[in-house]
Amino acid sequence: MIQATIRRSHDKGILSFEMTGHANFAEHGQDLVCAGVTAVVFGAVNAVIVLAGFEPLLDIGEDGGYFYFEFPESLDPEARQKAQLLIEGMIVSLETIERDYKDNLRVTTNII
Amino acid sequence: MIQATIRRSHDKGILSFEMTGHANFAEHGQDLVCAGVTAVVFGAVNAVIVLAGFEPLLDIGEDGGYFYFEFPESLDPEARQKAQLLIEGMIVSLETIERDYKDNLRVTTNII
Repeated sequence: MIQATIRRSHDKGILSFEMTGHANFAEHGQDLVCAGVTAVVFGAVNAVIVLAGFEPLLDIGEDGGYFYFEFPESLDPEARQKAQLLIEGMIVSLETIERDYKDNLRVTTNII
Repeated sequence: MIQATIRRSHDKGILSFEMTGHANFAEHGQDLVCAGVTAVVFGAVNAVIVLAGFEPLLDIGEDGGYFYFEFPESLDPEARQKAQLLIEGMIVSLETIERDYKDNLRVTTNII
């Protein structure tokens, strides 16, 4: 199962998110859930880079089983607002997948 | 091949987008490109509904080979701005897939 953990501050702003594990929906190369999650996450991060115009802090595991994204502390307010909306959109997309594949993806939120 | 056609007004605002065809990357049920595109598109539309707070005009084909999204003409400016950013993010995500799967997805833009 892929575990997606969203870390939010008390004012609900997103601080970071972390993806661990594999979907295990089907064998490697045919795993539709892994493909969907990968497309949503890599796409959202690319959208942040292209549309909000900054490089987030990233840590991407070699075997595809780990992905960490963090907002830089100092950031232009408009860029932050755009990126927050794009990552909120990514979370809605992950929750859309989770609804149909509860055994393969779990999205949880921690308030820091 | 999936053809994604983005219709933009002269001021570059997104008017609508249309998805036609199948990825044909692998047989049905194992098609990773179809899974990625579906997750990105359905996720982005759900994000518009949840985060921008309006129902877009949609036409979704039965067999998965057709998807049409259009902005309503009258729309709260803030809702429109949020939805424009979320759909721009979807386009970056589709272009991310297109880069690796040029034979299975093509993203084009028409200025109306």
